[in-house]
Amino acid sequence: MPTLVMKFGGTSVANLDRIARASKRVAREVANGFDVIVIVSAMSGKTNELVGWVSDTSHLYDAREYDAVVSSGENVTAGLMALRLQEMGIPARSWQGWQVPVKTTGVHSAARIEEIPSDNINGKFAEGMKVAVVAGFQGIADDGRITTLGRGGSDTTAVAFAAAFEAERCDIYTDVDGVYTTDPRISDKARKLDKIAFEEMLELASLGAKVLQTRSVELAMRYKVKLRVLSSFEEYDPEAGTLVCDEEEIMEQNAVSGVAYQRDEAKMTLISVADRPGIATAIFTPLAEAGVNVDMIVQNISEEGRTDMTFSCPVDQVARAEKAMQEAKNKGDINFHDIVADTDVAKVSIVGIGMRSQTGIAAKMFDVLSKEGINIKVITTSEIKISVLIDRKYMELAVQALHDAFELEKA
Amino acid sequence: MPTLVMKFGGTSVANLDRIARASKRVAREVANGFDVIVIVSAMSGKTNELVGWVSDTSHLYDAREYDAVVSSGENVTAGLMALRLQEMGIPARSWQGWQVPVKTTGVHSAARIEEIPSDNINGKFAEGMKVAVVAGFQGIADDGRITTLGRGGSDTTAVAFAAAFEAERCDIYTDVDGVYTTDPRISDKARKLDKIAFEEMLELASLGAKVLQTRSVELAMRYKVKLRVLSSFEEYDPEAGTLVCDEEEIMEQNAVSGVAYQRDEAKMTLISVADRPGIATAIFTPLAEAGVNVDMIVQNISEEGRTDMTFSCPVDQVARAEKAMQEAKNKGDINFHDIVADTDVAKVSIVGIGMRSQTGIAAKMFDVLSKEGINIKVITTSEIKISVLIDRKYMELAVQALHDAFELEKA
Repeated sequence: MPTLVMKFGGTSVANLDRIARASKRVAREVANGFDVIVIVSAMSGKTNELVGWVSDTSHLYDAREYDAVVSSGENVTAGLMALRLQEMGIPARSWQGWQVPVKTTGVHSAARIEEIPSDNINGKFAEGMKVAVVAGFQGIADDGRITTLGRGGSDTTAVAFAAAFEAERCDIYTDVDGVYTTDPRISDKARKLDKIAFEEMLELASLGAKVLQTRSVELAMRYKVKLRVLSSFEEYDPEAGTLVCDEEEIMEQNAVSGVAYQRDEAKMTLISVADRPGIATAIFTPLAEAGVNVDMIVQNISEEGRTDMTFSCPVDQVARAEKAMQEAKNKGDINFHDIVADTDVAKVSIVGIGMRSQTGIAAKMFDVLSKEGINIKVITTSEIKISVLIDRKYMELAVQALHDAFELEKA
Repeated sequence: MPTLVMKFGGTSVANLDRIARASKRVAREVANGFDVIVIVSAMSGKTNELVGWVSDTSHLYDAREYDAVVSSGENVTAGLMALRLQEMGIPARSWQGWQVPVKTTGVHSAARIEEIPSDNINGKFAEGMKVAVVAGFQGIADDGRITTLGRGGSDTTAVAFAAAFEAERCDIYTDVDGVYTTDPRISDKARKLDKIAFEEMLELASLGAKVLQTRSVELAMRYKVKLRVLSSFEEYDPEAGTLVCDEEEIMEQNAVSGVAYQRDEAKMTLISVADRPGIATAIFTPLAEAGVNVDMIVQNISEEGRTDMTFSCPVDQVARAEKAMQEAKNKGDINFHDIVADTDVAKVSIVGIGMRSQTGIAAKMFDVLSKEGINIKVITTSEIKISVLIDRKYMELAVQALHDAFELEKA
C-alpha cells in the first residue's frame, strides 16, 4: 500500500467536532487506498495554556520538564482521533513520540529528529491497521526523556515521517488554503499559487510567512518530500492547496513568485566603529548571546580605520541589543561613537527562483519603490530573494506596488 | 537516606498555588533528611474533562486509547511540581509511568501493578537528586502501551512505590485531615482516629469511605507499608492525620472503631426460587455479567424445594438486575414466582478489630437499633464488621445512635 502523511494543526483539531471533520478527510484517503500516518498538533490553545503554567511556575525553567509538560497536548489529540476513526470503523491506533520511537537530539525544546524507525508502525500496517495517529512535535532523547521540536514542530514531524516512510505525499492541513503571492490582507490581488519551489517556500517561511515551519521545508527539500499545504475547512478537492515541490516540476516560472514583508523591524547603526580584523565577531557574538535575532547586516566602506555598522532586528529586541553593545563597549571589546536605532522600519522582500535566470529584477524593484517615493534604507540580496528596509508607513504601499509591477496576480 | 513517599490528590494540586503549597511540604521532608518520591494526581477536574472527551468521541471506546488520553493529566502535574521544586532550589525531576517503568498487566483502564524497578530512580538519588515526582495512576504494559489503574489509582501507585522502595512511610495528602469514627456530616461527635488497623481501613474503604482506594489498602497491608492519611490544607504537624498500620501498633483498641454507611442501597428478593444445587451460581453469574455489584446475600431456609433469595445492590442497578433475572428465568436457567425490589434502604455497618476478642457486640448493635424503633431487614457479618440493611429514613439516626452507644467520641 502507498503511504500518505496528513498533518492537522491546532485549529484543525480544536474540538471534538473538528477532530471528527479531520477524521473524515483521513477516512477518504483510506478509501483512496492509502495507509495513512496522521500527525496531530494539540487542540488550539492547549499548548499555550501548558506553556503558561510552566513559565508561571519557573522563570528559568528546566527545558526537560517543559518538554514533559507541553508534549501532553498532542497525546490527547492523537488518542481522541484514533478513537474517532475506530468509531467510523477504521482500524487506527495512536502513537506517542517515545512509542514510535521518534529519536531526537537531547536539545530540549528545540530538538532535531535523528531517526524514525518505521518497523513498529509498518508492522501494524501489515496486520491490517489503516491509520497510525502520531502525536506531533515530540520525540525521545537517548537518555529516555521526552523532547519537543520547538513551536510549529508538528510540520517537521510530518515531513520527517513522510521521508522515513517514503510517503507518496505529505499533506499539511491548516487554516489557510495554500500559499499566496502575498498576504491577501494587504493586497486584494493576492493569488493562491498551485505550486511553489522548495527554495522559494524556504525564503518565504523564513521571511515570516506562517504557513510552514522553516525546518519542515528544509527537510522536505533535502528528502524530496512532496509537500502540500491545504485548508481543513474547505470542501474536499484533490487538487486543492499549494504543492511545494522541486522547481523542475514547475513548468512556467515567473521571475518573482511572491512578495513578503515583516512589519516590526528595527534598523540599528553603530556609528564610527573602530575597524579591525574580527570586529564583526566582536559585535555579533554578544548580540547572539543576548538573544538578538540579527537579520540584515551592512557595513559601510571603512575610512581611516573607522566604519559604520548597520543591522536589523525585531523591534522588541532593540533595548536588549543596545544593552549588549554598551556592555561590550564598557568591557573594551568594541569601540564606537554612538548607537542609533530606527524603530519605524519594515522589511519588504521579493522571492523567486526565476531571478536566477533573469536580469534586471533588482533594478526593477528599486525603480518601482522609487516611483512611489519610497526611500530604501538597507538592501540585502540572495540568489532568489531581494529584501529592503523602508519606512514602516510605506510597507503596504510597497507590497501592493511590487505585486502589481511583477504581475503576480497572473498565473 | 531513608525514603518517604508523599501522594497528592487532585484537589491538592488543583492549580499552581496549590502545587506550590504541596511543594513546600515536600521541601520540609527533604529538610528532614528524606529522599522523597512524590506521586501526583491530575489537577482536579482535568481527568473528568479528558474522560468526557473520550466518551463523547466514542461510545464503546478502545480502553488502550482511553488510557493514552486520560494519563496525560498526571504528566502535566508531575512536570509542574518538578519545576516548582527546582525553583525552590531542590534537585527534582519528573517521571512518567513508562519512564520508571511502572510495569502493569495489560488490562487497560483497570491494570494492576506487577513490578516497579527501583534502579532508575535510586540511581538519580545516588547522584544527588532529592525528589522524584512520579505521575500516578499509570503504567506500561508488556506491549509498550500506556495503562491506567482505574479511578483513584494514584493511591495504589503511592503504596506500590512505598513497597518497592521500602519507604519509611507513605503519606497520602488529601482534602480531609484523616479517618473519622464516622462521617462528621452525620454525627457532630465524629472523632478523628490517630491510628486505624489495615483490616479496619479495608472494610471502611469498601463500605464507601472515600479516603483511600480499597486496593491501595490491600497492598499496604500485604507489604506492611505504613500509610498516613492527612490534609494538604492544614498547617504542618508531624503528628497530623491518621496512621493506617498493623493492629499490633495500636495499643488501646476499642471494640468498634467506626460506623460506616451506604445510603443508596436496594434490597431485592427472588420469591420462591426453585431450590437445587448450583442455584446461587445460576442467579449471581448473570447478575455479575450484567455489571450488578451484589453486596449482601441472604438465603432463607429452604422448604419443600423452594427458597427466597435476598441480595442488596446499589439502587441505580435495580433495573439492570431485574432485567438479568427475567432473562435468566425466560431461558429456564432459574425459576421464581416473583421479584421484589425495596429501593428505600440503606446499609449501616460497625467495624472494629476488637470485635474478634469481645463478645456481645452484635447483640448490642441490634439492641441499640431496636430501642430506636429501627427494623433490621438484612444482616451480614464478617470477623470485624457487622452490616445491616434498614429503612433509609432511619440511616442518620442509626449512625448517631451506634456512635453514641459504642462511645466512639472517646479515644
